Amino acid sequence: MARSTLYQLVASELRRTIYSGALGPGDQLPTEAELMLSHQVSRNTVRLALGELVNEGLVTRTPRRGTVVRERRPLLIHPQRELRPQQETREAFAWAVSQEGRAPSQEIEVSIVQPVEEIASRLELPDEELAVVRRRLRFVDGQPYNTNDSYFPLALVADSEIARPGDITRGANRVLEELGHPQVRVVDDIWARMPTSSETERLQLQSGTPVVVYVRVGYDEGDTPVRVAVSVLPADKHLIRYELESR
Amino acid sequence: MARSTLYQLVASELRRTIYSGALGPGDQLPTEAELMLSHQVSRNTVRLALGELVNEGLVTRTPRRGTVVRERRPLLIHPQRELRPQQETREAFAWAVSQEGRAPSQEIEVSIVQPVEEIASRLELPDEELAVVRRRLRFVDGQPYNTNDSYFPLALVADSEIARPGDITRGANRVLEELGHPQVRVVDDIWARMPTSSETERLQLQSGTPVVVYVRVGYDEGDTPVRVAVSVLPADKHLIRYELESR
Repeated sequence: MARSTLYQLVASELRRTIYSGALGPGDQLPTEAELMLSHQVSRNTVRLALGELVNEGLVTRTPRRGTVVRERRPLLIHPQRELRPQQETREAFAWAVSQEGRAPSQEIEVSIVQPVEEIASRLELPDEELAVVRRRLRFVDGQPYNTNDSYFPLALVADSEIARPGDITRGANRVLEELGHPQVRVVDDIWARMPTSSETERLQLQSGTPVVVYVRVGYDEGDTPVRVAVSVLPADKHLIRYELESR
Repeated sequence: MARSTLYQLVASELRRTIYSGALGPGDQLPTEAELMLSHQVSRNTVRLALGELVNEGLVTRTPRRGTVVRERRPLLIHPQRELRPQQETREAFAWAVSQEGRAPSQEIEVSIVQPVEEIASRLELPDEELAVVRRRLRFVDGQPYNTNDSYFPLALVADSEIARPGDITRGANRVLEELGHPQVRVVDDIWARMPTSSETERLQLQSGTPVVVYVRVGYDEGDTPVRVAVSVLPADKHLIRYELESR
């Protein structure tokens, strides 16, 4: 118990230097030897403390560079912005990235599928009905950043740009409007989990990085779901922000 | 590479039986031997596949009970509900839990602190100014569920119920209203990370369970922050939902 308390104390002091900004992204932490001396603890205690920070995603440890504070420049996601299409001429992700002076890009793959139960039920799709899915892997400054898979009922979008491969510069939501099915209400569900191995690979995640799953279901004026968008957001790179006013 | 594809395939088939509901919470997965036979793969492949599901938080493995589908009954958090105080006579967490027919309870600890930089800056607290923090560990049916630490400027709440120990049945937000500082606008930030070791202990987290951090800053009519609430929500037990309408 005594040792556990001690290493947690050291971890907590190091954490404070990071949260306070005294050590910023890319900065090196003192070496194990320096920490042993400055905190008057054993090498084992230092290692337990550093392991704790690695586990929290605050630092990385490499043999060459030592312990380094991780880059923390989360992309700010404003889920409400997408609901004001008249103000936006670009798809929301591209817009958010550009706002920060960074360069967005994406790989897109369009296919027709029978969606898994979870998607089908959110889309209120009758049995055997098909959906168009637009699967996107999105990049910021050339680094893989997140994925967004958007599902649409095939019956609704079969003859539109949504069912054709390639980018839709003005965004699929605009196409839904043109089809007479603007989304007037959305339900956003947000949770987190550890990534699957294919996500770890695809998004080049560092070990111990959870993902935030953000699912938006969009409903048209008849309250029929017309889009289910599933975003997988590596937790170290994203921050979701809502602003609400009481009425 | 071939083996990696194979175990991912097995994992994906097992995942489907869980997501489809064919196997529900508490149900046992087939044994390793059964899976080897049914999927015609090696024990190693089966173990890799099961390890994947453990890592995703879908199942737990214990020597005695084998592989069991985890309880998934996330508490639905509606951050918007708290903004309609006229409709609520109870604090939001207690309300959400009761709605589901479960029993809420909490331990509460009230103290006066000089908050860390991150909180102080959100609270726009001048240097050296103090805050009252109400730290709550919240339980559902007796199980530790999440924590909520709410900070208030000491100058504002010093003479109120907020600065006194113990529960405030009608919620601290109502007290702020009574003090002439109703929250008319809030900014909600949501992200995720791995838990610290003290969170793991306090919330009795299973290994590999990330936490969702949900920070709400509430502003009064003069656009002064009057409350910063930090919730730490174990990811396997919570779902945050927003409903938005386009206007």
